[in-house]
Amino acid sequence: MSRELADPAADIEIDREEDLEDLALGEDYALNPQFVSMVVDAADRGDSDRLRELLSALHPADVADLIGFLAADDRKEILPHLDPEALAEILSELDYEIREEILEAVSPEVLARALGELDSDDAADVVEDLEDHKRAEVLAALPEGERAAIESALSYGEETAGRLMQREVVAAPQFWTVGQAIDHFRREADDLPELFFDVYVVDPAYKPVGAVPISTLLRSRRDVPLAQIMESLSEIPVDMDQEEVAYIFDKYHLISAPVVEPGGRLVGQITVDDIVGVIHEESREDILALAGVSDSGRHGGVWDMVASRLPWLLLNTLTAALAVSVIQAFEAQIAKVVTLAVLMPIVASLGGNGATQTLTVAVRALASRELSAVNAVRTVSREMLVGLVNGGVLAVVTGVAIYLVFGDLRLCAAFGAAIIINMFVAAVAGALVPLALERMGRDPAVSSAVFVTFVTDFTGFFAFLGIAALILL
Amino acid sequence: MSRELADPAADIEIDREEDLEDLALGEDYALNPQFVSMVVDAADRGDSDRLRELLSALHPADVADLIGFLAADDRKEILPHLDPEALAEILSELDYEIREEILEAVSPEVLARALGELDSDDAADVVEDLEDHKRAEVLAALPEGERAAIESALSYGEETAGRLMQREVVAAPQFWTVGQAIDHFRREADDLPELFFDVYVVDPAYKPVGAVPISTLLRSRRDVPLAQIMESLSEIPVDMDQEEVAYIFDKYHLISAPVVEPGGRLVGQITVDDIVGVIHEESREDILALAGVSDSGRHGGVWDMVASRLPWLLLNTLTAALAVSVIQAFEAQIAKVVTLAVLMPIVASLGGNGATQTLTVAVRALASRELSAVNAVRTVSREMLVGLVNGGVLAVVTGVAIYLVFGDLRLCAAFGAAIIINMFVAAVAGALVPLALERMGRDPAVSSAVFVTFVTDFTGFFAFLGIAALILL
Repeated sequence: MSRELADPAADIEIDREEDLEDLALGEDYALNPQFVSMVVDAADRGDSDRLRELLSALHPADVADLIGFLAADDRKEILPHLDPEALAEILSELDYEIREEILEAVSPEVLARALGELDSDDAADVVEDLEDHKRAEVLAALPEGERAAIESALSYGEETAGRLMQREVVAAPQFWTVGQAIDHFRREADDLPELFFDVYVVDPAYKPVGAVPISTLLRSRRDVPLAQIMESLSEIPVDMDQEEVAYIFDKYHLISAPVVEPGGRLVGQITVDDIVGVIHEESREDILALAGVSDSGRHGGVWDMVASRLPWLLLNTLTAALAVSVIQAFEAQIAKVVTLAVLMPIVASLGGNGATQTLTVAVRALASRELSAVNAVRTVSREMLVGLVNGGVLAVVTGVAIYLVFGDLRLCAAFGAAIIINMFVAAVAGALVPLALERMGRDPAVSSAVFVTFVTDFTGFFAFLGIAALILL
Repeated sequence: MSRELADPAADIEIDREEDLEDLALGEDYALNPQFVSMVVDAADRGDSDRLRELLSALHPADVADLIGFLAADDRKEILPHLDPEALAEILSELDYEIREEILEAVSPEVLARALGELDSDDAADVVEDLEDHKRAEVLAALPEGERAAIESALSYGEETAGRLMQREVVAAPQFWTVGQAIDHFRREADDLPELFFDVYVVDPAYKPVGAVPISTLLRSRRDVPLAQIMESLSEIPVDMDQEEVAYIFDKYHLISAPVVEPGGRLVGQITVDDIVGVIHEESREDILALAGVSDSGRHGGVWDMVASRLPWLLLNTLTAALAVSVIQAFEAQIAKVVTLAVLMPIVASLGGNGATQTLTVAVRALASRELSAVNAVRTVSREMLVGLVNGGVLAVVTGVAIYLVFGDLRLCAAFGAAIIINMFVAAVAGALVPLALERMGRDPAVSSAVFVTFVTDFTGFFAFLGIAALILL
């Protein structure tokens, strides 16, 4: 074929692909519903060529999104049309429940080939989700080295640096020069990680003593010794909690960091793209925990969702029952002045809202370490002051409204006093409970809200009904 | 001095520095209270040498933390002991309010020198916080090029890619080889950004056509053309919202991305370390917004905190007043059966908790784009089903308890029916309200909770008291 004939054809091919890419994603990088239905149609017709064409227009992360949007039957239709490399990347992007389903449907041999394409940390993530019998088959189908790497990754505790790290690192001895290092990398190109950002300089015992960002390597003269341009490093112990690792990356703006064994030997590295995932995960956990949703039911079926939420609701039923027992003690007073029953929920509700505000700010500040033993006293005092001020303003505003509606100054006084007391108690509980839980080594996001809401409900009812009983009746 | 004499002295010096570093940070990378008091002591005594020694043991990010922990007087004492380079880095780490205070205390000339050490995005961040007269002085004291870069950064909207990007990029023409690129970087070492991760390959119109990760550059042979090893890229339009940018970085695991003008010309780059900050900021905004805390009072004084929380409390007072007006309509029934007043807060509270769960999951799913038009109907239906199941279980559990306590089957039936109704309404409102707000282009985290809580309070009171009125009286 002459060059003149080949070129226009290639252009058309490229144009078509670009058209599909443009069609696949909307302006906001979300999948187009229209593109999704094209995939569903092709899957329903069993049109392999069309499916392959459509899927090849997508980044693996978008294929993962697409798979998440499809019904289970259409998902199965798509699987055979993914090549192992793409399958590997898609697997590490998929949500837990859908990944489980896909893993079931793929043969151990295909899985093993796909895992070979991944870094050890991502491969271990996938293997972890396999059921026992399948895990053994997949591991057996892997080459020796990769199996060892994955098994070693899985030997570290969940949510630790060891689990997060990849074993693939680029290390160089202290006495090398820039030129020696670059020549070595060219020779050993195939053994290097696909992407890396720092060269770790190690001593003879393979302990990291410094890091050379590869952009520094690129601009330095060939005869400069690595020891001269290396920077100090933040070593990550292999058993450090991933939340701590994320904190260090964020604080020191790290792109990668060496992971070391207890003896100080370099065993792997963590890169910032893993950390972005951790930050998302941790903030998701915090925000859901504050709302009383446990992690079990993320994308699962209705029963998983029920399991993730019902325990919290039952616990709240119990504390609500305790709080309303206060009301029972004042039944006689309420029977005389029913308006008390109308107004008491407002006192409890405002206290609950005030407590949630303080609590959320405190939980966030603890997570980002803006709140610690150093400034705890100052923080709590400020919260108490804010509670008093907010309580005062709310007492005046609601007091005026109550006087206008009910024309009763004593009711108005009881309500105002109860609001101030409850907003103050809300501030104290909202700040102290998470601090106390943190000090006890518990996650303040998980268990604070139920305590604090009970305290403000109880206080709200007791303060309002008690004061009213004293001055009204 | 002979080598034998010099070495031990150097060792002692190093040991001492390391001791201080070990002392400065606890095991969890938080500042030691003991170290903080050493700094305070030195500041109080005006002991410059000691202060300088203590501060030099810290990373700028830790100095920023330290400054945050100190009282205003001690802060002023410390400022003169920071060299411009350290001051620059510390400034970009400081919290907004404290930064303002420090910026006031430093002379324009010192500031200009410090800003010269920063990338254009970080420098612009600092300049943005300056008061008008000081900003003019500082800009005037900067060299022409840096002033232009900062002014251009500030010309983009807040929270856009343009504001986030740094203008410093590494670009190479399409026809260069690996060897030509590396030689060029060595020659122009001083003009390169301090850290970079990708070389952008540009066409003659300076439009990016591909990216070469520098680790790929390092391992490729010198005669390979860049066009052959370049990868496709995700271009970021200069006016894209930073939340969108963070989404793209997270989804495609980017380390850096080129920022382009409307015409497609390369104008800068965004790196993943900027994105880590954005992710933190956005998740913080969401979590606080859900709790009804606006962004104004982050680290400010008591009045800022009040301003950030009182509007929400006042709004909730209003909706609570509307919701309890339902109770007023049933005053006659409550006067007859005061137990209704005891039990009604439980119905409202469980509805509120259920709605908060659904709402929080929906807001998170919208933020991470797991929830979109494609799967909205399925999501809402599942939530409704979960609401019914949770409501059913809670109705049975509480129903039995109520029968055991009060021995009244009709009360028990009214309570159970109200719980099921309210949990169902909570699920519908908790899922639909954030979806509707998102569709209207509003932030669902900010305004959902107040609507939804009103709905469940109102429904809770109305369903329980209404049904009770029908079957009990």
